[in-house]
Formats: sequence, C-alpha cells, structure tokens
Amino acid sequence: MSPSSQEIQTLATRINQLLIAPAGGKSPLTVATAESCTGGGVAAALTSLAGSSDYVMGGIVSYSNAAKASLLGVPQEILDTRGAVSPECARAMAEGARRALGTDLAVSTTGIAGPGGGTARKPVGLVYIAVAGREGVTAAEHHFTGDRATVTSAATEAALAMLLARIERDLTLR
Amino acid sequence: MSPSSQEIQTLATRINQLLIAPAGGKSPLTVATAESCTGGGVAAALTSLAGSSDYVMGGIVSYSNAAKASLLGVPQEILDTRGAVSPECARAMAEGARRALGTDLAVSTTGIAGPGGGTARKPVGLVYIAVAGREGVTAAEHHFTGDRATVTSAATEAALAMLLARIERDLTLR
Repeated sequence: MSPSSQEIQTLATRINQLLIAPAGGKSPLTVATAESCTGGGVAAALTSLAGSSDYVMGGIVSYSNAAKASLLGVPQEILDTRGAVSPECARAMAEGARRALGTDLAVSTTGIAGPGGGTARKPVGLVYIAVAGREGVTAAEHHFTGDRATVTSAATEAALAMLLARIERDLTLR
Repeated sequence: MSPSSQEIQTLATRINQLLIAPAGGKSPLTVATAESCTGGGVAAALTSLAGSSDYVMGGIVSYSNAAKASLLGVPQEILDTRGAVSPECARAMAEGARRALGTDLAVSTTGIAGPGGGTARKPVGLVYIAVAGREGVTAAEHHFTGDRATVTSAATEAALAMLLARIERDLTLR
C-alpha cells in the first residue's frame, strides 16, 4: 500500500467516525460523490468502511460529457465554453450529485489524469474538486505531478480532505 | 498489492485491450457500471487505465435503496419483495445503468460486504452480479468468504470477469 493509499484510508476513517449513525439513531450528515478523473475511487474509499451505508447514499461516475449533462445536470454551456475540466464544471457536478442523491453534502472531481488529454492551458495533473452543501458550493484547483495512478490517487485524497473539512465545519456549526 | 488486486488489474487490462478505440476510430463497445456492494471499485478499476474514456461512459454507485430506485429505475416492488440483494435487483440495476448511460453493456453488483447486515437467508458474502446487453441480461450468484475488503475485492474481480466474458462473446458474434 502506497503512503497515499494509507492517507486515503485515514481520511475515509475520520469521515466514518464523524458520520456513522449512533445506535438507534441516524447519521448527522449524508454524502454523495460525482467523479470524473477519480473514476469511482472516492466512492470506493468512502464505502470501504463498515457502517458507511449510514451516510453514503451513492455517487455518479460521469466519465463522458454526456453523463455529466444527463446524470448530473451540468449545463451544456459550461461543457462547451469552460470545458469538463473547469471549476464551473466541478461546482455543477457537486451540486448535481447533491440534488440527484438528495444528500446534505456532495464532493466532485474533474481533471486530466493522463497520460493523454493534456494541453498547454490544461496540462496533465490539473484537477478541480468541489464540495456542495446547503450553504453553497466551493471549488479548488490542484496541480498534481506523476503518472496516471499517482494523479488519480492524489485527487482522491484531496477530495476526501476537502469533504472532511466541510463535514467538520458543518458539524461544528450545528 | 494482494493477489486479488493483481487479478483485478489483469482483467481491466484485458478489457482495455479489447475496447480501446483504434487511431481515428471508435470503441467497438461501450460500458457502464451500477454498483452497490463494490462501492465504485469496478468503475475505478476500469478507469485506472489510459484510454478507458474511449469505452467507459460512467457509472452509478447506488448505495441506498432510494438511489437504486431513482437513478437506476429499480422497481420499488423488487426492493420491497426480493430485496436489494437479489438477482432481480442486480438485473434491474444493470439494465438501468445501460439505459441511463446509453451504453452497449452494463455490469452491476449488489451484495452483503459485511461485517454487519447478514441474515440466515442472506449471509455476509452473498453477492449478485449481472451484465446487461442488447440481447438481454444475465445474473450470477456468488458466495464469498472473508472480511469486508476481501468480499468487496472478490466481487469486483467477479464483475470484471463476467463483463469481460460478455465482451469477448459480443466481439466474436460481430
């Protein structure tokens, strides 16, 4: 297991500790995922832990642009003018997953895992991650280096970290 | 990396070799996923390889019953009378993903990864996997042993193997 895999497991475990339902009760927050470049890795990490069905309602892997539009409701205008790898698309994906799964929070990933697909303006390793919640949606831009597996793993870790930060904030504000 | 992880990678690589688009052309078959107990692991394995965006349109992780109904169109009657862990649900999930993503093929997983959730009739390790295509949908029942990670990994491997077998058959029949 690479150090990054360990960190992914640590983040998913921390989320599990915060969101698992108390005996006879229900989870304080529910979550969903909308993944492009991570391809299901964020959902797989979240659901790797016992009890995750308390708070993970599900996720959508929108690998094609058609899936981003049809399953997540990403406006075609964003795909045409900003592209699938853009903060606007990441935000629309997170909002779309939150709406489609009916959850409190949703996290999204969209980026260029490589080795192909990079351009001067959007190089391999560029990844946008967004988290949507009741108070709105925020996006972050990342530039990861390395091969496809390294970029995907780094993006998965960053998505879990951003989701965990929002969970901690939302639970504190209650 | 466990032996099972290596086998997962081998199966995904074989699918990649069969479905990657030729230069200037398009993939011979497109695929989608509908995952419950594997939680995104099948999609993550398929998309771990360069070029997978040629043939993976996306997938749906339907962890909750509500997501199985709303995103995949699994009839409420199946969920009520057969349960989410049933061959009927696996078939409906695969057909739903094929329809939602507009692909040639779709593979689904639904089962009890454990450690909780098992019953005498539906013990931990019981997993149904289905593949839907133009000629219909088939489901298989598996009984895996081991902890949550082992069951999930075995289910991911079995789903990829069943998908690969259908791909090989469909490509031969062309």
